[in-house]
Amino acid sequence: MKAIRVHSYGQPPQVDDVPEPEASGPDDVVVRIGGAGLCRTDIHIIDGWFADVIPAELPVVLGHENAGWVHAVGPAVEHLAVGDPVICHPNLTCGVCRPCRAGDDMRCVRGPNLPGLMCAGGMAELFKTNARAIVKLGANAAPAEAAALADAGLTAYHAVKKAVPGLGPGSSAVAVGAGGLGHIGIQCLKAMTPAQVIAVDTSEDALKLALKCGADYVVTSDGQQGQQVRGLTGPGADAVFDFVGEDNTIGDSVGMLRPGGTYYLVGYGGTVTLPTMQLVLGEITVAGNFIGTNTDLADLVALASQGKVVLHSSRYPLEAANDAIDDLRHGRIRGRAILIPG
Amino acid sequence: MKAIRVHSYGQPPQVDDVPEPEASGPDDVVVRIGGAGLCRTDIHIIDGWFADVIPAELPVVLGHENAGWVHAVGPAVEHLAVGDPVICHPNLTCGVCRPCRAGDDMRCVRGPNLPGLMCAGGMAELFKTNARAIVKLGANAAPAEAAALADAGLTAYHAVKKAVPGLGPGSSAVAVGAGGLGHIGIQCLKAMTPAQVIAVDTSEDALKLALKCGADYVVTSDGQQGQQVRGLTGPGADAVFDFVGEDNTIGDSVGMLRPGGTYYLVGYGGTVTLPTMQLVLGEITVAGNFIGTNTDLADLVALASQGKVVLHSSRYPLEAANDAIDDLRHGRIRGRAILIPG
Amino acid sequence: MKAIRVHSYGQPPQVDDVPEPEASGPDDVVVRIGGAGLCRTDIHIIDGWFADVIPAELPVVLGHENAGWVHAVGPAVEHLAVGDPVICHPNLTCGVCRPCRAGDDMRCVRGPNLPGLMCAGGMAELFKTNARAIVKLGANAAPAEAAALADAGLTAYHAVKKAVPGLGPGSSAVAVGAGGLGHIGIQCLKAMTPAQVIAVDTSEDALKLALKCGADYVVTSDGQQGQQVRGLTGPGADAVFDFVGEDNTIGDSVGMLRPGGTYYLVGYGGTVTLPTMQLVLGEITVAGNFIGTNTDLADLVALASQGKVVLHSSRYPLEAANDAIDDLRHGRIRGRAILIPG
Amino acid sequence: MKAIRVHSYGQPPQVDDVPEPEASGPDDVVVRIGGAGLCRTDIHIIDGWFADVIPAELPVVLGHENAGWVHAVGPAVEHLAVGDPVICHPNLTCGVCRPCRAGDDMRCVRGPNLPGLMCAGGMAELFKTNARAIVKLGANAAPAEAAALADAGLTAYHAVKKAVPGLGPGSSAVAVGAGGLGHIGIQCLKAMTPAQVIAVDTSEDALKLALKCGADYVVTSDGQQGQQVRGLTGPGADAVFDFVGEDNTIGDSVGMLRPGGTYYLVGYGGTVTLPTMQLVLGEITVAGNFIGTNTDLADLVALASQGKVVLHSSRYPLEAANDAIDDLRHGRIRGRAILIPG
Repeated sequence: MKAIRVHSYGQPPQVDDVPEPEASGPDDVVVRIGGAGLCRTDIHIIDGWFADVIPAELPVVLGHENAGWVHAVGPAVEHLAVGDPVICHPNLTCGVCRPCRAGDDMRCVRGPNLPGLMCAGGMAELFKTNARAIVKLGANAAPAEAAALADAGLTAYHAVKKAVPGLGPGSSAVAVGAGGLGHIGIQCLKAMTPAQVIAVDTSEDALKLALKCGADYVVTSDGQQGQQVRGLTGPGADAVFDFVGEDNTIGDSVGMLRPGGTYYLVGYGGTVTLPTMQLVLGEITVAGNFIGTNTDLADLVALASQGKVVLHSSRYPLEAANDAIDDLRHGRIRGRAILIPG
Repeated sequence: MKAIRVHSYGQPPQVDDVPEPEASGPDDVVVRIGGAGLCRTDIHIIDGWFADVIPAELPVVLGHENAGWVHAVGPAVEHLAVGDPVICHPNLTCGVCRPCRAGDDMRCVRGPNLPGLMCAGGMAELFKTNARAIVKLGANAAPAEAAALADAGLTAYHAVKKAVPGLGPGSSAVAVGAGGLGHIGIQCLKAMTPAQVIAVDTSEDALKLALKCGADYVVTSDGQQGQQVRGLTGPGADAVFDFVGEDNTIGDSVGMLRPGGTYYLVGYGGTVTLPTMQLVLGEITVAGNFIGTNTDLADLVALASQGKVVLHSSRYPLEAANDAIDDLRHGRIRGRAILIPG
Repeated sequence: MKAIRVHSYGQPPQVDDVPEPEASGPDDVVVRIGGAGLCRTDIHIIDGWFADVIPAELPVVLGHENAGWVHAVGPAVEHLAVGDPVICHPNLTCGVCRPCRAGDDMRCVRGPNLPGLMCAGGMAELFKTNARAIVKLGANAAPAEAAALADAGLTAYHAVKKAVPGLGPGSSAVAVGAGGLGHIGIQCLKAMTPAQVIAVDTSEDALKLALKCGADYVVTSDGQQGQQVRGLTGPGADAVFDFVGEDNTIGDSVGMLRPGGTYYLVGYGGTVTLPTMQLVLGEITVAGNFIGTNTDLADLVALASQGKVVLHSSRYPLEAANDAIDDLRHGRIRGRAILIPG
Repeated sequence: MKAIRVHSYGQPPQVDDVPEPEASGPDDVVVRIGGAGLCRTDIHIIDGWFADVIPAELPVVLGHENAGWVHAVGPAVEHLAVGDPVICHPNLTCGVCRPCRAGDDMRCVRGPNLPGLMCAGGMAELFKTNARAIVKLGANAAPAEAAALADAGLTAYHAVKKAVPGLGPGSSAVAVGAGGLGHIGIQCLKAMTPAQVIAVDTSEDALKLALKCGADYVVTSDGQQGQQVRGLTGPGADAVFDFVGEDNTIGDSVGMLRPGGTYYLVGYGGTVTLPTMQLVLGEITVAGNFIGTNTDLADLVALASQGKVVLHSSRYPLEAANDAIDDLRHGRIRGRAILIPG
């Protein structure tokens, strides 16, 4: 079958012919891919950012945002049938450790176990995962439309869900970056809280998408965005979600908060550099966010099935992966790029 | 009356004769001071750290950790009687804004309104505050023993209280710094959670105090403290309380956390410098802490009255304030220094 | 001025001429009434249900859902100006006890202190309350449209707010009764949670209003309502709000819950009679709800000012109070009846 | 092997010879029993209370509080080794449904699946369960000492854990009944909260045990207990745990609460009969409690391993089960009866 593989960091991935995976283990599930999302993390992988942090053996099939239909299951899998439309959680977990039992499966004691980064992912025709990493979609769901929920959506949802208790009536939340993650985050905020939502982006197209997604206000990131957010929120925002996470968005985002507010760091790349006096006197919280749990993904699928979260995406044939990568690198994608096998 | 006043930043404060305050406003309360705590923040004030951040007109009477007996009350004060032993919350609030009504009075819309920093404090014989800033002590309480609850205690309690929901059975918490704040934080942790508590300090005396306060383990801060904490906690601690907050304790403290753990920043002085990738992959939260609320102080007074929190202090006559300051600057104080008016 | 007073339990109230109140105390506020809501509790008061529970000296002016404009303030009131549009919280509190300081002012140690029940209420031209019981409306707000937020709205909001943490994506909530309280509860649920909302009522008109308020499903209360709700929710609803609280709605409502679900009791009148085995095996929670706090009211005003909660009401001249009472007794009012002074 | 089986409701169980179970399924675990706790629920089972509610095929081996050592494991079990000391959670769950994934495994969609009630339990030499129902004990743990944690302990812990957020400094909690469940509940309260704990029981021996377990006050249940609790708590207790749950303890317990307090119903047998007006005006919550989750059991094992919870028990040989049952029926057991196989 066709698969998109990274052979060497810093080089574009290749379209390769590879053997089909099989549901050999008792809990294995092989999924026929309906769509695989392309994520900024894929670019970080290609560029070798994780080479020292998370070990992988090259070549590796990319793809950690996968959805499709059940193709084959191992002998111990009882709750799934061939043909079921499903979405794949990006982490493979043990199911018996404390975090798994507590619903905090992202912190399975096995550590991150991430297809598309550490083993073969879903930018391919078939993808092998395990039963615990499967969330069912509705009977009539189109997997290609759901794929990006599996990481972009999940990450945005997870951060928003943490913020819900602090976002009551009269509150305000800022989404810094209204792209692949941000446009989902905005919809989650509108679906789950009564907060006023402000989108901040450099791109006018992104801000148009933000309005379509329900943002109450949009602010162009032109150097004055901090003041503008403060103008809209009075004492500052209750929560700022930084879907970018680069050096200049960090200080900016923290500066938009009211005393006691929380900065949700979702995107990454830069360095957080903040005087302790600012954090202490302002009683600021900086909350890192790493993907989300299996139940987070199920929640998000519920929101999507009710039409409360709609993914905006651009489709590319699987073989055109490098075109999609190029478009993403150059900021030419609104919403999310999805690769569709032949 | 005698009062300790800062006349010029960078100079030792002076023992001055000043007029006695009066309960002229309807909600005013004048307290006869039984004891006033000396805090590292007093040193920061003397040294002028806040000169640009928080405006004050010099000379200013120091003292934001005050306890004593009600001396006089304004006409609208009904729930206090002359002679009642009381402790004074360090912030003066309006009582009608949203944060005040929500119990979050540290974020009163008036902003910080801090006696001993922005107006006359309690290193004096009498101290004027308002009815909303008073918490009653038990009928037989000794105010000098309670004074340090008003800021050191309150700040430590406030940070610990935030952490309670995450510190269930089998969890672990680290106190970095077992001095004025830390020794109270350790007792709060033991009183309010079943967490195993690990104290980390450079000083063997401080660690002895930590054991007396109930710490389950003590670790000398000798460069290997991170490894030692990890040895005691397996995946790392659930919570680390940094009562120091200087450059070298910050990275160290964050390094002691398990994935998903929270770093409670209480002391301040340094700069938080952390790669976003560490915060995101580890899903780390950095929580700034600023003093605490009126109900936090009442809670802490309840713990102290039940013997669950005992302050370790060294007493100095009010006039010997500069000796105490000198001892604090040179790390010669275990627990908290308390100034006692003649 | 004109006022609606109960002279004797069991008799209709009378339209009386009474002296105008004055802002004599330091924190007093006199409000010129724009609208006063009529509540089922008013009928309970007239009928003498509270005679033994909550003492009142007759005659008493009815009216605990009051909104209008500031008419006069006492000397200590700084944050209100004559002419400000305001809504009045139904409880007068002390501001210094522990519950007041914690934001839980409904449990002020003074106990319930309820105008319109225990002292003169707002079915009159002017109404005296105190500064702590005032919540400002937006500059252009029409008080008559907001009045019913002060009790019906507040009570519904308070119950819904408690339920928010358990009503995530994919959850379901049932409103039993879609009248004065229910139609506001439905809107709060839609504004604050992503739950599917099911309205249950005997009246087709009430169910039409429920749909207008955003209910996802409506079910006629015809004896099969339990089965129908179960059909819509699978294992049962996560939360059931009983805005009626009579003997037959209670068992019915609890029967609609999934294991682990919560029954929010808002209306009252009947008796809860449930076998412990049902409560234990089903791990059911029964949560009584009593009005709401000052910050709850401010939250609800924020929702209303953003158009997320719209009150459906029928207006009557103040003097026609008995017509309104008669219509309420006979179920002829959709939404809420509001009395408007001349 | 020997096993204690119920052959007919209303008749004493018999000591039978039955075949040994085998670890035939992939996730099966066979445990060599070190101790099996005897619970009031066993008496309810023998008496046929559950005959209509929870179906079981007779004869059934009793025993839902089981601990011992791993004797054999199925082929898919990787994290357990023969000889490991373990305690057995009383419910067998699927591991893939939403509640299981959310850590709420007591509400597995399979429904209650309770050995000792619905299939063979652990009052026997060997007991078959599955890998998900196992919690490891410390390497040196004595299973017979831990057995009663598996249900009595777990149920008490689960109820206490729910109450933790409301039991801060200065709060008070009442344990009604200081027997098998109550004496563990008291220890959990002391370990996890700073609340003052009041034990109420008819038996002076039980109250002595309560003091040993850390209760701050004990009150004899002699008709004046409500007044006495109110004398100790002022406005009433924040939480009352009813470990008995019979008609007369229910009204009594609810009457001990402060406004806004919560009644945790743990024992069962009687009927909750409460006027809605009492629940609404007092804003009382009635919370049913059903056993606890796998992580609850792990938490409790952690508390026990740190010496914070010590079980008080009376040991009987397995064959003397009917003596133990008789002693329990007649209130002659302090703490918990444990059956020890030959």
